[in-house]
Amino acid sequence: MRVGRFRYAVLCLSLLVCLNSRLHAQRREPIISPEVHSDRRVTFRLQAPKAKIVAVNLQGTHAMTKNNEGLWSVTIGPLEPEIYDYDFVVDDLRIVDPANAWLKVWLRTSRNVLEVPGDQPTFYEEQKVPHGTVHIHKYPSKSLGVTRGLYVYTPPGYETSKEKYPVLYLFHGYGDSEDAWTVVGRANLIVDNLLAANKAKPLIIVMPYGHTPSAPPVMRSIGQYESFERDLIEDVIGYVQTKYRVSTDRKDRAVAGLSMGGGQSLTIGLGNLELFGWVGAFSSAVPEGESLEKLLADPKAINDKLNLLWIGCGRSDFLFERNQQFFARLRKDKIDHVAHITDGSHEWRLWRIYLNELVPLLFRPDK
Amino acid sequence: MRVGRFRYAVLCLSLLVCLNSRLHAQRREPIISPEVHSDRRVTFRLQAPKAKIVAVNLQGTHAMTKNNEGLWSVTIGPLEPEIYDYDFVVDDLRIVDPANAWLKVWLRTSRNVLEVPGDQPTFYEEQKVPHGTVHIHKYPSKSLGVTRGLYVYTPPGYETSKEKYPVLYLFHGYGDSEDAWTVVGRANLIVDNLLAANKAKPLIIVMPYGHTPSAPPVMRSIGQYESFERDLIEDVIGYVQTKYRVSTDRKDRAVAGLSMGGGQSLTIGLGNLELFGWVGAFSSAVPEGESLEKLLADPKAINDKLNLLWIGCGRSDFLFERNQQFFARLRKDKIDHVAHITDGSHEWRLWRIYLNELVPLLFRPDK
Repeated sequence: MRVGRFRYAVLCLSLLVCLNSRLHAQRREPIISPEVHSDRRVTFRLQAPKAKIVAVNLQGTHAMTKNNEGLWSVTIGPLEPEIYDYDFVVDDLRIVDPANAWLKVWLRTSRNVLEVPGDQPTFYEEQKVPHGTVHIHKYPSKSLGVTRGLYVYTPPGYETSKEKYPVLYLFHGYGDSEDAWTVVGRANLIVDNLLAANKAKPLIIVMPYGHTPSAPPVMRSIGQYESFERDLIEDVIGYVQTKYRVSTDRKDRAVAGLSMGGGQSLTIGLGNLELFGWVGAFSSAVPEGESLEKLLADPKAINDKLNLLWIGCGRSDFLFERNQQFFARLRKDKIDHVAHITDGSHEWRLWRIYLNELVPLLFRPDK
Repeated sequence: MRVGRFRYAVLCLSLLVCLNSRLHAQRREPIISPEVHSDRRVTFRLQAPKAKIVAVNLQGTHAMTKNNEGLWSVTIGPLEPEIYDYDFVVDDLRIVDPANAWLKVWLRTSRNVLEVPGDQPTFYEEQKVPHGTVHIHKYPSKSLGVTRGLYVYTPPGYETSKEKYPVLYLFHGYGDSEDAWTVVGRANLIVDNLLAANKAKPLIIVMPYGHTPSAPPVMRSIGQYESFERDLIEDVIGYVQTKYRVSTDRKDRAVAGLSMGGGQSLTIGLGNLELFGWVGAFSSAVPEGESLEKLLADPKAINDKLNLLWIGCGRSDFLFERNQQFFARLRKDKIDHVAHITDGSHEWRLWRIYLNELVPLLFRPDK
């Protein structure tokens, strides 16, 4: 099917003029930013003729320089293959890159995301393997009295199988929402790749929204897990069990999370041993005080019932000392656990790695 | 389960200090923007102490004023209940609102989105009704040689039903990607609400990515629909039929789209009458020239096979004249169609309305 080329050119031009005038009135042609070069150097560009100082924040601040047309740019690197986040500072204003549509949306602000690929696709990158599906649900939370978002990953083959699958309940951090583990954490691609390499048992991952509406807007979830726990146990688990073919055996149910979500997974996992057989906590805000005492009150029950208690933390994390204290306490109480101490700070780079390490350990009968 | 309050307060504070220093170093407390008041006025805020002129672009430009702490703000409205998009201009720099995490991500840039609710939830808003599920797929496109994204909506009850469902293939516009019809278009909520009111037949909606990698980056898809058409017919339809319980009868298969996607739905729908029984086109980039002649070559076949050809366009749309010419041509050729002319321009507001009008007409045996 071919098209009258001249007429289409006119139509295309009208559309572009319209879109351009709406979207980037100050520009004459599209600005490519970031541009990832084949040698893994990266060029950032921003049109800002009247600005006095422009810089990109990406693991430090990199000053940009202006050309005659008011286009600021800088080339940095080569960078290690990784997913980075960055933003711009224009005079004293932090902004996101208007030419980059990939944003990590936080609760109250955003940063751009940039992927520098290596020569071979790595464990969190899309490879030529079968892909699972990510499902976006809105479920009625009776316990909270609101409708809430929920992401669910099903592995390749789920649709045509008759089997029941084990489930990992996976929690995000304080600055995230229920899409974070797929959009930034790449949980779906990590598991696709593990399954293709036969390194993990096929599983379903359920990613709920970790904030609850009862608490104030800023501090609103940290340490206030009771309502989240009720929502998970009374609403989410049942909802998942009506929508998906999942095993309801506690040995087929795991819970894990990062940062605030790690505090939640420890609280909910250790606090409900009759429901969960596996607990993971990444860079986690470990429960303290009375709450901790209650969770660890019966070390023998934990050792008898839990197949795995896996706790990862980076040495440069601001929560590292707290996790170290937790490890000491677990040793003192002789509670079986894996203390997975690595380089790194409080960052998504680590959480992708930790997920890739934890998932192969889950739901194995020998554990 | 209760928590040692003092210790938690310390931990919360550490976390917040860390998050704040990473995310909004220049702020002392979170900025609420936009703030939608109960009388439907909206306040926008931006911290930018050194800026000289700051304004918000929302259906026109609204100057903001600065207080002693460098916080700019303006209150506008009351606004009609609607979903709006906006951004800020700081001196001559267009930026998105760093306090608003809801963005409409375009191909190469973004704008913030803002919802002003009415007293009663309207047709595209979340209501207390059963909700369907949105599924995010990555499917291998053999015809294009790449892996592509695909969104699929299944209606409430799909998981527990045994029935086969009719399918609407729904295409986005030039500036969008495969998530646009759910994130901005609210197709899922619109259909949830229609189904709850018993105004439509339960259906599956398949939302593919409309751009193809063969064309250059800027003009890259408009008028170059051959590769998209091949991908849809050779890859997408088959993929959907292996993953979902769908009817394969052409009377249970519809195609619709907006703008560029309207050009695609007309091209693919009219060009493959053996596959599609229903065609919708919203504010569409109507095919022209040889391409159009080929599509309309056999008016009798169109009238015999098509259950519905539904074309919506706003009078202020820059494509309105082109759609008017198309209506004239359809009348001349005596091709049955619905010419749905309304107020409005080239805007998502209309496309939500058009979808809400089209879906109840689909898959009805009396048509």
